[in-house]
Amino acid sequence: MEVKEITNRDDDFAKWYTDVCKKADLIDYSSVKGSMIIRPLGYAIWEEIQKALDKMFKDTGHENVQMPMFIPESLLNVEKEHVEGFAPEVAWVTQGGKEKLEERMCVRPTSEVLFCEHYKKIIKTYRDLPKLYNQWCTIVRWEKTTRPFLRSREILWQEGHTMHRTSEEAIEETLKMFNIYKKFQEEYLALPVITGKKTEKEKFAGAEITYTIEAMMYDGYALQNGTSHYFGNHFADAFGIRFTDQDNKLKVPYQTSWGVSTRMIGGIIMTHGDNNGLVLPPKIAPWKVIIIPIGEVSEKLKELEEKLKENDITYKVDNSNKTPGFKFADAEVKGYPIRIELGKRDLENNQVTLVRRDTLEKIVVNYEEVLEKIKYLLETIQKDMFEKAKNRRDSMIYEAMTYDELKDIAENKPGFIKINWCGKTECEDKIKEDTTLKSRCIIEDEEVNGPCVVCKNKATTRIYIGKQY
Amino acid sequence: MEVKEITNRDDDFAKWYTDVCKKADLIDYSSVKGSMIIRPLGYAIWEEIQKALDKMFKDTGHENVQMPMFIPESLLNVEKEHVEGFAPEVAWVTQGGKEKLEERMCVRPTSEVLFCEHYKKIIKTYRDLPKLYNQWCTIVRWEKTTRPFLRSREILWQEGHTMHRTSEEAIEETLKMFNIYKKFQEEYLALPVITGKKTEKEKFAGAEITYTIEAMMYDGYALQNGTSHYFGNHFADAFGIRFTDQDNKLKVPYQTSWGVSTRMIGGIIMTHGDNNGLVLPPKIAPWKVIIIPIGEVSEKLKELEEKLKENDITYKVDNSNKTPGFKFADAEVKGYPIRIELGKRDLENNQVTLVRRDTLEKIVVNYEEVLEKIKYLLETIQKDMFEKAKNRRDSMIYEAMTYDELKDIAENKPGFIKINWCGKTECEDKIKEDTTLKSRCIIEDEEVNGPCVVCKNKATTRIYIGKQY
Repeated sequence: MEVKEITNRDDDFAKWYTDVCKKADLIDYSSVKGSMIIRPLGYAIWEEIQKALDKMFKDTGHENVQMPMFIPESLLNVEKEHVEGFAPEVAWVTQGGKEKLEERMCVRPTSEVLFCEHYKKIIKTYRDLPKLYNQWCTIVRWEKTTRPFLRSREILWQEGHTMHRTSEEAIEETLKMFNIYKKFQEEYLALPVITGKKTEKEKFAGAEITYTIEAMMYDGYALQNGTSHYFGNHFADAFGIRFTDQDNKLKVPYQTSWGVSTRMIGGIIMTHGDNNGLVLPPKIAPWKVIIIPIGEVSEKLKELEEKLKENDITYKVDNSNKTPGFKFADAEVKGYPIRIELGKRDLENNQVTLVRRDTLEKIVVNYEEVLEKIKYLLETIQKDMFEKAKNRRDSMIYEAMTYDELKDIAENKPGFIKINWCGKTECEDKIKEDTTLKSRCIIEDEEVNGPCVVCKNKATTRIYIGKQY
Repeated sequence: MEVKEITNRDDDFAKWYTDVCKKADLIDYSSVKGSMIIRPLGYAIWEEIQKALDKMFKDTGHENVQMPMFIPESLLNVEKEHVEGFAPEVAWVTQGGKEKLEERMCVRPTSEVLFCEHYKKIIKTYRDLPKLYNQWCTIVRWEKTTRPFLRSREILWQEGHTMHRTSEEAIEETLKMFNIYKKFQEEYLALPVITGKKTEKEKFAGAEITYTIEAMMYDGYALQNGTSHYFGNHFADAFGIRFTDQDNKLKVPYQTSWGVSTRMIGGIIMTHGDNNGLVLPPKIAPWKVIIIPIGEVSEKLKELEEKLKENDITYKVDNSNKTPGFKFADAEVKGYPIRIELGKRDLENNQVTLVRRDTLEKIVVNYEEVLEKIKYLLETIQKDMFEKAKNRRDSMIYEAMTYDELKDIAENKPGFIKINWCGKTECEDKIKEDTTLKSRCIIEDEEVNGPCVVCKNKATTRIYIGKQY
């Protein structure tokens, strides 16, 4: 029963990441290449994410449905831009039982075409609009190199697909869901994020506008952690969706889609984790508290458990036969926000020791005050984790006014870089070729303050660029 | 806006069933043959089922995980009986992106082999046992003929897979989950079920014992609505799973698996539905109440909504611009347990009209009493629906003492038949050939009271037989 060794985060961040994934029992590998097993703690975090987001979706009028997991090739081919974006990376089913399929089908990489086919059948008049559907499901993209949660052949996610009477309504929906994602990631996952439109080059296959949520990881790399797309009505048009509007004219509705995935769990790990393992923000931790009894304390333990239950504070008790030292390390690697050391000697002095996972600070409190202190700490930890991540993120955002400055920062300072840009894809491509930086998103609230950092012509836009997962 | 026509249940039960599925907006079809779209009401029922069952699983110590959706062919082949049972009906992925796979993979038809591979890695000593895992996911079985919810190429289900130190513990687990399924179906779905062991012939591919839950549909056909399997340890042995026991000896653990699916929704429809459509048991209805405002009643409507919210009674309001008659029919086809007709004239007399979906009884109550009445009715409807289904079911269980009697009942009386049986598969097969009846389950609480109904030799067992979906 060795204490689990984790690679130092500053020595080898990639290895540190997979160590934490494995040693916190979040995932395991199997003989299915490119897929991962999500273990109980990993899946419990996903369930917390689902519970919170699903409520936000339903509170804003969305309904859950379930589409087929397969897409016949001819259906995938209906929208040209879309199929070009996805066909190279899908898994094809070619045989069912003993029979070879007449038409092969892919496992859905995303479900726009399935929703469109359905919407064509159920949208007839303006009274049928809006349609606000979402589904929680697994999608498949045949990635060559994979990493737990970040890039996997199978991805657990949700995908919202909505149809609207007007373009304005659809854009409003795109932004509404984008803001829900932002709020969720900041308030629940304690992830400070930058947000904005993707450039033409980087937007989703077939979308007119893509809004993106970009979080900065500990190593300065960006994690695209959710997108919300406005499609206009060319998709709906390609699928022949028509409705009779109030003016009795036949029109084509406007469409959005939006999604987030288990990738967010990777974002939690790489933003908050440390050399002792996972650090979970209290609002998304499946168990807020881990109790480690030391010595014969069963009576007080029972009392404490009752108190926690009454106050809806989820917890676990480590009753295994391991040493307290091992249990402390295990509680740390698994990221429980608060550890309670319920010791016989402490209790004789009417005391209990609490340990904050985010700071590892030890706090000794009187037994009577333990519940109030836990409540206070859960709120404080959530707030502090966000602030700490935000301060670090802000300190790693740079501005480059010239191409030399850009290349220098790219080489020497991990983080995001703000630049002025002429808006041409050639300049965007050049940056990518020279530096491995890619456009993150357009900066909406800052004015252009110089020429395009690449071609030196007049800039029209400011954007964030950065390396990405 | 025609009122939706449903085929008479006694004229053509199969057509009635698909009419209800379609017209209650539970499902729709797509170009993906053999799969169905689960629409918002259908999916909301599934979410209610998941919520209730998931709590029961967690309260008994089970943890959720997520395994890959694919199984490499070599992994499926490890356990012989198992692969023979499933290989003929799986979907094969042979290509990923542009590359042909070196080894084809099937989409999981069930996940025993994936769990075994994982358990081999994580079970080392008796301290690692039991392992009590469950997953909610979609499986694929390449069925030739499909029907919504009952038999589909894609099935939403849960599958529990557990490992235990001893055979006794594993059998206890098999029975525990079996009893949870029974309790859930009786108490939540209001489905009276017969339960017992499957015969050797009918048990799950690779299992030593299969316990089954069998509900009787309106047409007398059986719906196998959940199974719980004891595997012994031959599966674990085939996968090389070994643990060091307390006595320091290397041993092979014992295994169970158990599952229920969206098939249960088919069971609800075919047990409780009527010529007006779906009838949902209150405990599983996503919305217990539908309010239909008639005339200008917005103030009282708001008040009523507040009352329902405060009491955690889920509801919908039909505010569409359709006629009250249309709304009543729509509320009936969708099966809301209670319809509230909130009419201006009624309210002037301080009255509200409630309509029970199960009996279509109209109940006029004073406005002040509406909440109490709703609470009372929800309990009463749940109880009455179970009783009604049970009485009908019991009236359709027959006993056959001779083969002629059996054939006569099989031809003329829909339902289940109890018989004495010698225990030989030949006799079981003969019944199946001559009548399309199949063994349902072994009757445990009745003594053999005559010779085998087929071969007239000494009977050892009593079993239920019946036609099945």
